[in-house]
Amino acid sequence: MAPAAPNIDGVLETSLYVDDLEGAARFYEEAMGFAPLVRDARLCAYDCGRRSVLLLFARGTTGETAPLAGGAIPPHEGAGRLHLAFAVRAEDLASWETRLADHGVSIEARMTWPRGGASLYFRDPEGNLVELATPGLWANY
Amino acid sequence: MAPAAPNIDGVLETSLYVDDLEGAARFYEEAMGFAPLVRDARLCAYDCGRRSVLLLFARGTTGETAPLAGGAIPPHEGAGRLHLAFAVRAEDLASWETRLADHGVSIEARMTWPRGGASLYFRDPEGNLVELATPGLWANY
Repeated sequence: MAPAAPNIDGVLETSLYVDDLEGAARFYEEAMGFAPLVRDARLCAYDCGRRSVLLLFARGTTGETAPLAGGAIPPHEGAGRLHLAFAVRAEDLASWETRLADHGVSIEARMTWPRGGASLYFRDPEGNLVELATPGLWANY
Repeated sequence: MAPAAPNIDGVLETSLYVDDLEGAARFYEEAMGFAPLVRDARLCAYDCGRRSVLLLFARGTTGETAPLAGGAIPPHEGAGRLHLAFAVRAEDLASWETRLADHGVSIEARMTWPRGGASLYFRDPEGNLVELATPGLWANY
């Protein structure tokens, strides 16, 4: 039996890599309503609730080690239409659908999960697959 | 003034796309100690605490719409060395470093953040950049 791992207290940061940072930022701020924690020409960071953070990186700016005053951030980069999901309350799903429609965002698919949760799927301007999911999806949600 | 968005209750799912699902699963289960929520030939899902979920998708299996009993999941896919961060308590960071060393995982970089948080950076077997970060990084963490 392996020793138990020290505690992990959740995913803190989730990253997307975008060609048009300004356009993606507009989507996450205006359609999704996220508050920026950082907003510069290379990175936008958003508070997504429950102290989780969405990072939008301008593609091509993260492929080299970034030396900083307190250390360094190693290279990373991404391509493709990534998938991420945000948790929403069941009673807010209809309001979200209205809001997305008001911002010209089409719902691409829907799911009702065996545990009773429901998901909406749509795209950000970069083609990433965004999901809003209500409780009743995973054993831990 | 735009109407306030309905509530978002955090990032629920963060996705990685891997060539060797078995090898990646071993890393996240054995080195990171994550408990599987789902584990099949296409997808491994892990409970990362605070009801956040890490999804590992076998690359090449998600590029078409997946019709399911309750609806459908649209196409998504990813490439590159993506970045994600997990929250850990400050008092657990040294234990994490020991555990990673015990599993042959090298620390690639470290950061001390202006707000007092600390981060360790290392790679999963697919080259994704994994960070463990203690509180004192973002305005919301």
